[in-house]
Amino acid sequence: MDDKLELAPRQLADPRAARRAMRSGAWTLPTAALAPGFVQANLVMLPAEWAFDFLLFCQRNPKPCPLLIASEPGSTALPGWADDLDLRTDLSGYRVFEDGRCVAEPSSIAEFWRDDLVTFALGCSFSFEQALRTADLEVRHQALGRNVPMYRTSIDCASAGRFGGRMVVSMRPFLPADAIAAVQVTTRFPAVHGAPVHLGYPEQIGIHDLAHADFGDDPVIHDGELPVFWACGVTPQVVLEEARPPFCITHRPGHMLVTDRSNASLAA
Amino acid sequence: MDDKLELAPRQLADPRAARRAMRSGAWTLPTAALAPGFVQANLVMLPAEWAFDFLLFCQRNPKPCPLLIASEPGSTALPGWADDLDLRTDLSGYRVFEDGRCVAEPSSIAEFWRDDLVTFALGCSFSFEQALRTADLEVRHQALGRNVPMYRTSIDCASAGRFGGRMVVSMRPFLPADAIAAVQVTTRFPAVHGAPVHLGYPEQIGIHDLAHADFGDDPVIHDGELPVFWACGVTPQVVLEEARPPFCITHRPGHMLVTDRSNASLAA
Repeated sequence: MDDKLELAPRQLADPRAARRAMRSGAWTLPTAALAPGFVQANLVMLPAEWAFDFLLFCQRNPKPCPLLIASEPGSTALPGWADDLDLRTDLSGYRVFEDGRCVAEPSSIAEFWRDDLVTFALGCSFSFEQALRTADLEVRHQALGRNVPMYRTSIDCASAGRFGGRMVVSMRPFLPADAIAAVQVTTRFPAVHGAPVHLGYPEQIGIHDLAHADFGDDPVIHDGELPVFWACGVTPQVVLEEARPPFCITHRPGHMLVTDRSNASLAA
Repeated sequence: MDDKLELAPRQLADPRAARRAMRSGAWTLPTAALAPGFVQANLVMLPAEWAFDFLLFCQRNPKPCPLLIASEPGSTALPGWADDLDLRTDLSGYRVFEDGRCVAEPSSIAEFWRDDLVTFALGCSFSFEQALRTADLEVRHQALGRNVPMYRTSIDCASAGRFGGRMVVSMRPFLPADAIAAVQVTTRFPAVHGAPVHLGYPEQIGIHDLAHADFGDDPVIHDGELPVFWACGVTPQVVLEEARPPFCITHRPGHMLVTDRSNASLAA
């Protein structure tokens, strides 16, 4: 962890400096603490031959797959989103999949790069969670230093070509009046999952054991709180695993793409 | 009912013509069917000596008391809201109160008029219910031809001078995803009660018998639906009854002020 300690606070706060620290290998940890206030994104890279289907899947399922930007095939940049970006090196962790199986978790994908890869950057809940906190709404799992609880649901996504499957949701508990405020706040952020898809009655969306999350940590729900469910960025990961493209690269969970755009700039 | 039948449809649809029909006595019924798409308002008239306290109460409690416009003392007009208005004759029913007791329910208040009366027009749920229907959300009590169920709650209003009391809410049941959409739609209409104040768990706001409404008709709630609660315009009526001003005039329930502004124009 010496690498981390050698970084000056300014390098953690500025998104371009944060990316350079990841490029050089000086930062190898998850990105939650980096560049606070700036959009962080889920990353999916697919061969061009699979890219149209995935783009269409995102277009048809904007709540679980809120596409911020997609690249030209073979491009390592995302113009307008991250200055001086090299998509092959500027994340602190990647996952490389072959036929749906994870074959490597490198911190650079230079050796795996292909000129037919299309990169998709998808909005992530970090952005709307900042908006919730700014509105004085406690985000429970953050307050407790835990991961957000996530669940498989019975909600069908709209299929597109070889991609299809069911929605994964994240859950944050709120008292009723705060749940209403959370709907209002996140409605303003359609680019990062937007409004909840469900609240109360988890069994209506196929969640039969709320106390045990399918991904992340189990929830902590207080008396009188309602579970509020947002479409989750794990959905495209599950869909990708099921579609089993011959080749695919994603970010490593928690190791997001750090962009230059402010979370606040995404407000609709 | 002959009077009603003699009115041409155009007279029912145009707000100014509808007011003239009420002024002439040709329309004496409730106003729900008149001038669809135009804002209808709750009316409160108080002596100037009580007007500041009530104005302050509205300012401090915008959800139950969304003030659209208040008049100068003695004025029978509401400039910008209703062309050629005479507040003494242009509603189809009034209630006259002395010391908090209803002493008359006339269709004109010409004989009760005082030059020190200040008129308050408060937004009404008719407007946001139109927005809900436009968003393909069924408003249950309307679909069933019933009155909306309303309940006294334990939610304290912010007091102002001689006015204070607890909030009355109206309830509309929705499936969870529709409840989220209903929050989104009504958030855009802060001038007519705005977003709900509560959903689920009625006991948290002091409603211990949801099946029996305190005002209006009892609810019809289907399995899997959440009760969603909005601040209600009955609140100022209850507050007025408790404050017992020596003199006061209101609209008769259901006999609203019909204005020239479209509901859609209230969207924030």
